[in-house]
Amino acid sequence: MNADGAPGRRRKFWGWGYEGDGLGEDEIRALAVRIGPQLGTLEPRVASPPRLEELRLRPPRVRPPAGLAPFSSDAARDRAEHALGKSYRDLVRGLRREYAHPPDFVAYPGNEEELAAVLDWATGARVAVVPYGGGSSVVGGIEPDVGDGYSGAVSVDLRRMSRVLEVDRASRAALIEAGILGPALEDRLRPHGLTLRHFPQSFELSSLGGWIATRSGGHYATLFTHIDEFVEGLRVLTPRGALETRRLPGDGAGVSPDRLFIGSEGILGVITRAWMRLQDRPRFRASASVTFASFVEAAEAARELAQSGLWPANCRLLDPTETVVAGVGDGSRSLLIVGFESADHPLDPWLARAIEICRGHRGTVAAEEAAGAPDRPGARAGAAGRWREVFIRGGHLHDAMVRLGLVNETFETAVTWDRFPEFHAGVLEATRRAVEQVCGRGLVSCRFAYVYPDGPAPYYTVVAPGRPGSELEQWAAIKEAASEALLRLGGTITHHHAVGRDHRPWYDRQRPAPFAEALRAAKRALDPAGVMNPGVLVDPPS
Amino acid sequence: MNADGAPGRRRKFWGWGYEGDGLGEDEIRALAVRIGPQLGTLEPRVASPPRLEELRLRPPRVRPPAGLAPFSSDAARDRAEHALGKSYRDLVRGLRREYAHPPDFVAYPGNEEELAAVLDWATGARVAVVPYGGGSSVVGGIEPDVGDGYSGAVSVDLRRMSRVLEVDRASRAALIEAGILGPALEDRLRPHGLTLRHFPQSFELSSLGGWIATRSGGHYATLFTHIDEFVEGLRVLTPRGALETRRLPGDGAGVSPDRLFIGSEGILGVITRAWMRLQDRPRFRASASVTFASFVEAAEAARELAQSGLWPANCRLLDPTETVVAGVGDGSRSLLIVGFESADHPLDPWLARAIEICRGHRGTVAAEEAAGAPDRPGARAGAAGRWREVFIRGGHLHDAMVRLGLVNETFETAVTWDRFPEFHAGVLEATRRAVEQVCGRGLVSCRFAYVYPDGPAPYYTVVAPGRPGSELEQWAAIKEAASEALLRLGGTITHHHAVGRDHRPWYDRQRPAPFAEALRAAKRALDPAGVMNPGVLVDPPS
Repeated sequence: MNADGAPGRRRKFWGWGYEGDGLGEDEIRALAVRIGPQLGTLEPRVASPPRLEELRLRPPRVRPPAGLAPFSSDAARDRAEHALGKSYRDLVRGLRREYAHPPDFVAYPGNEEELAAVLDWATGARVAVVPYGGGSSVVGGIEPDVGDGYSGAVSVDLRRMSRVLEVDRASRAALIEAGILGPALEDRLRPHGLTLRHFPQSFELSSLGGWIATRSGGHYATLFTHIDEFVEGLRVLTPRGALETRRLPGDGAGVSPDRLFIGSEGILGVITRAWMRLQDRPRFRASASVTFASFVEAAEAARELAQSGLWPANCRLLDPTETVVAGVGDGSRSLLIVGFESADHPLDPWLARAIEICRGHRGTVAAEEAAGAPDRPGARAGAAGRWREVFIRGGHLHDAMVRLGLVNETFETAVTWDRFPEFHAGVLEATRRAVEQVCGRGLVSCRFAYVYPDGPAPYYTVVAPGRPGSELEQWAAIKEAASEALLRLGGTITHHHAVGRDHRPWYDRQRPAPFAEALRAAKRALDPAGVMNPGVLVDPPS
Repeated sequence: MNADGAPGRRRKFWGWGYEGDGLGEDEIRALAVRIGPQLGTLEPRVASPPRLEELRLRPPRVRPPAGLAPFSSDAARDRAEHALGKSYRDLVRGLRREYAHPPDFVAYPGNEEELAAVLDWATGARVAVVPYGGGSSVVGGIEPDVGDGYSGAVSVDLRRMSRVLEVDRASRAALIEAGILGPALEDRLRPHGLTLRHFPQSFELSSLGGWIATRSGGHYATLFTHIDEFVEGLRVLTPRGALETRRLPGDGAGVSPDRLFIGSEGILGVITRAWMRLQDRPRFRASASVTFASFVEAAEAARELAQSGLWPANCRLLDPTETVVAGVGDGSRSLLIVGFESADHPLDPWLARAIEICRGHRGTVAAEEAAGAPDRPGARAGAAGRWREVFIRGGHLHDAMVRLGLVNETFETAVTWDRFPEFHAGVLEATRRAVEQVCGRGLVSCRFAYVYPDGPAPYYTVVAPGRPGSELEQWAAIKEAASEALLRLGGTITHHHAVGRDHRPWYDRQRPAPFAEALRAAKRALDPAGVMNPGVLVDPPS
């Protein structure tokens, strides 16, 4: 049994996407030519991804017992694929052929009985269990780096649990297995005229269960930003047994059980299925691209939009540098993309008011589009359409930059509007200073990934020349400077990338201590042996 | 020290509101004449509320120690006021002069130090602590009926912690102490042009901390229905110490700490203050009253409105019987009140589309109103305005009905749209059968208190003639029949009235067992002695 238990193309074990996808070496060199001038001359050297036969994986410490063997694999390819996520650090280590923490084997349970067998065995054998959806974690969330307290680690890949089990058209909801990836999920909802409309940048290779476990951020720039709000009910398999919450449109019966598992990052159990709230497929759209000479004024426009009650589906603000990195501007102006969509009504009054708000902050409308045409992805023109394409190809661009030897980190946060000016200045300054110190030069850009009535969720991108052999130290210095600034200035260490193992030092300071005690106690109640994703969110039991 | 530590009028110790408020005996007799024909002849007997000197309160089992004495009282009036909530059962027991579980004393801490002193002493002395906001619980949430495992019970009344500490105009947020009641909160925000716009029916006598602890339902019929969404950050005092969450517009760093305390009903600690998301005061309004011959069609209209993305602030559907009880209809048609409000833009396109939706389900517009005038409460005309007045006076009407000897219960729930027709028929049938069996006749009416894209939150009202001396048995039989139907047919035992002690039998079946274990474990971590509001949500430690 191996990954081919699921149909379709083979996923890469290094980098983004499926084998055969991604930028060719010529395209990567062209990228170097385009962004080189911003970074100093780039050597047009392109590192090669690892080949399987180059890896020296640690021999398995445990083998799948007979009960798990039919749906488990300790083949090198399976172990390599489940050894690293998709962060900058992961990609660099992969290019160095450093796969230090492969799982001892990978289990591909096809149903809850098989999954329960894994949890039972792991609990008895003190083997760490690392739940695995699409493997897109950029925070070490799926890396089996679980410390010495375990006799081994098994990666539990949910790809065989990927059905849409039930569709409720009247309530616009569906019961969906957790292992389904984004594209398959949308494919199966489309015939019903429905869509989850949750499009994280990792959409192609992330799973419903992963989205819920990590509180991922999706398509909507306002209102329903995280997956959280789309969860109507959950089923979770814990080492102490299964748990299912009632599907309810709204509830007020005590502490929300769903909310204990949303964001639990695999430490309490494995989410196996969920009733998800869906949307009708949009029939109407209206959007505009607005440019601003001043980022401060653009941010004020975004604030007024977020507080207007218009609830735009798109409301992304790119600072001048970000427009260059994304290839949608020349770096002279900030760009605000504001868009509405509806299955119910034309949106002209919505867009008209949004444009009025932007003009009130000295924005210039660069493009405007209203359409009643059916949903056709890719049919969108202008900066909005170009930005969307860049967004979707983000994983491949990231790979390309790493292969070019660039240090390329993204970090994201949220902060209230009153603090934003000082926060933003402080984060930029700390990050740029670190970039200059460790890389000599580089770009630090910002966009608003989401906007709330009470504050934005800024997303920062760093691109800087790496020194061969020192990239991880450079990256760590920048990451630390940026993270310290986020924490010190009132932000969160993560708005939608999750905590995993990599964000722990800052998360531990952000999280109130008594809450940590409560969470550890809840974990002990559901996972007495402490085998579930040790090291994520809380320390493994000592 | 007593309740007069807070300025203003004296609250009643029986029934709703302040001394001097409520319906006079003549008004109560007029009510009997109006609704009598629906219920059979009502004896125009009006029971008298208890007087303090009539009560025989159990002597205190514990006295306030010296450290708490300066802000505590064991005066009979304080103890009586904190002995019962405002449920039907509470009111009947009060009329019978049955105050079986008064607190031994009431503490009125004025700050966190005083509150911490209460928790420390109670933990050491094994005295139960019952947090008390406005006392409006209708589920036994504030009744010190804590079982025999404690040497006493203290009611901790937060009324002296009621300041607005900080206002952040840019983010539209404020840091507010938990003990503040609705009217004072709005009074203090008004000068800033801001409003929380959270108007539960208990608004006059419920507190911010109580709203958060019980996940109360407010003004908005769609979108931001519960207080939950308005909580930006919290501060909680637990027996193990204080805990403060970071104020963030959005967050994705692990399990939400806020969500562990939202809905915790006092079992984990006392919420002392919160950063709350606020609204600009509305400048534009547009609303319509639409009647339907068929409740089924009206419900379909409500569903389409809830799924339209128009997000009306008001979207309340009253069935024909409910229009009679509320005095806004003759019982021949269902009434849907749909309204929009905005501080940003005129709402004509919103209302026009909403009316179009209603007409598509054979609704007839009875009244329509659009206004750009400033917010003037009470200025609204038509059925919407009348309904609003009845809603606000609900507490006094409830008192009046109980004094008339009527059995008057309300229960509320939520259910998905696909199940609603069968659910509604089943709940009505079970409740009406119980009413007929135990009361001979009576009214059972329904309104939609809230509507979600995936289902409504129906609110049922029972009014039936009681038999003197048997009212509580009659009530219990009806409550049990209704609650069993709610659970069996897929609803929740409460959408916004909370669990308290009274809903435990059904909540315990609704709540997944492993979640109960996790919640108990979290409670043990934060409240090792188990003194916080024992019997609410989970059993006291044995």
